[in-house]
Amino acid sequence: MATEKNTSFGSSSGSQPLYLRLRDQLWQWIEQQPGGSQFRLPAERELAERFATTRVTLRQALSQLEGEGRIYRSNRRGWFLTPARLQYDPNKDTGFHHYVQEQGLAPRTETLQKSLIEAPPWLAALSGLAPGAPVYQILRRRYVDERAVLVEHNYLNPALCPGLLNQSTDLSIFTLLKERYQLQPAQRQLSMYAQALTGQEAEALGVSPGCAGLFIQRLSRDQQGRFLELDQEYWLHDALTVVVQVTG
Amino acid sequence: MATEKNTSFGSSSGSQPLYLRLRDQLWQWIEQQPGGSQFRLPAERELAERFATTRVTLRQALSQLEGEGRIYRSNRRGWFLTPARLQYDPNKDTGFHHYVQEQGLAPRTETLQKSLIEAPPWLAALSGLAPGAPVYQILRRRYVDERAVLVEHNYLNPALCPGLLNQSTDLSIFTLLKERYQLQPAQRQLSMYAQALTGQEAEALGVSPGCAGLFIQRLSRDQQGRFLELDQEYWLHDALTVVVQVTG
Repeated sequence: MATEKNTSFGSSSGSQPLYLRLRDQLWQWIEQQPGGSQFRLPAERELAERFATTRVTLRQALSQLEGEGRIYRSNRRGWFLTPARLQYDPNKDTGFHHYVQEQGLAPRTETLQKSLIEAPPWLAALSGLAPGAPVYQILRRRYVDERAVLVEHNYLNPALCPGLLNQSTDLSIFTLLKERYQLQPAQRQLSMYAQALTGQEAEALGVSPGCAGLFIQRLSRDQQGRFLELDQEYWLHDALTVVVQVTG
Repeated sequence: MATEKNTSFGSSSGSQPLYLRLRDQLWQWIEQQPGGSQFRLPAERELAERFATTRVTLRQALSQLEGEGRIYRSNRRGWFLTPARLQYDPNKDTGFHHYVQEQGLAPRTETLQKSLIEAPPWLAALSGLAPGAPVYQILRRRYVDERAVLVEHNYLNPALCPGLLNQSTDLSIFTLLKERYQLQPAQRQLSMYAQALTGQEAEALGVSPGCAGLFIQRLSRDQQGRFLELDQEYWLHDALTVVVQVTG
């Protein structure tokens, strides 16, 4: 919470728009409520009355708090306090199920689609495979404590892990590669950036197209430098913090 | 561009809304235009005519491309193709000016405010300083090729770098600490997450409150574990990619 408070640093001046002042009042009130991370906000009608404001201004203030990652909307169930962000260290070679459990939370993975495709030009360029070469494509949705927080596209090299599509991919692909194929990535190249969620990713996460997200891509190669896996993750913007510890 | 193209992967179905189909048409057209990263889009009126659409749908499509980080709006000058993202490796101990120049771009830093403050509770908790202890606070805006891409709050421990506020902070504080105070961080703890830009950060970057951004925080300590600096950066969402290379 400490750093997030700083976001509104210096913003308590009287010159700011009504909805931003309402945001500050709302947040102050939310913080005083019991219930911790399970806190659910009262209905919008009740909130508008409590803060003596219009539904329009209230919705602007709520959207603002949503954009800042402090509250989130659950379909038909109302507004909730956003749980603490999950922490992910890109330098550590641990899978989603492992680091979610380590943080005392419950992971779940759901496989949405599996198919054999021909490598499109962008994937061929990135992986070093020939354009049109066969590639396994898997689309999965992942949950933390039953909240859908990311969708993930995995692209794998069938030459290295034949028959993978016949295995269950509802747990860790990393573990599957290791235990069934004795494969471990020797080099991984990661890119991470903020990007709006659109198209099928926004749909699979139940948010409006254009909603802020975090994109994480991992390109893995084996000891011989052969393409093993490309993993593209689309996270809700409020679900993850990337942490890195540097010494020396 | 390879990975960004994948964002609209599978989204060319006929069932998607008009503005998303227009987005795909617009993007296809933009990619065929000469001019590279300096490309400026024609006026909205002209674009609406060219694509035989309304201004409303056109604006939705443009906003969508903006959210995806493909185009950006420059005050009064229209829409431009977003330059390639700057790359930042959190494991490398190089400053902004250094890594921007390394990528063939021109960095600039502008100091907006400098002051001596009393450590607020959140900063005391994070740094280990006593609440109310004196802290140097510096607010800066940084540019790449004259586009403002981030605002940065630096908090420094005056006990370790007395008189720092009398120095120019229009270059690297890292270099200043090293050359003038013989100080180098021995440990740095980084957190990065996607978050909407709000308040003074949105204002300083000239974007609407609620616009997607990337937040990067660095907490630095010296050899003895004493608090040296806290650096909080608010980036435009389309300006930076965090890259990490992992081996073994």
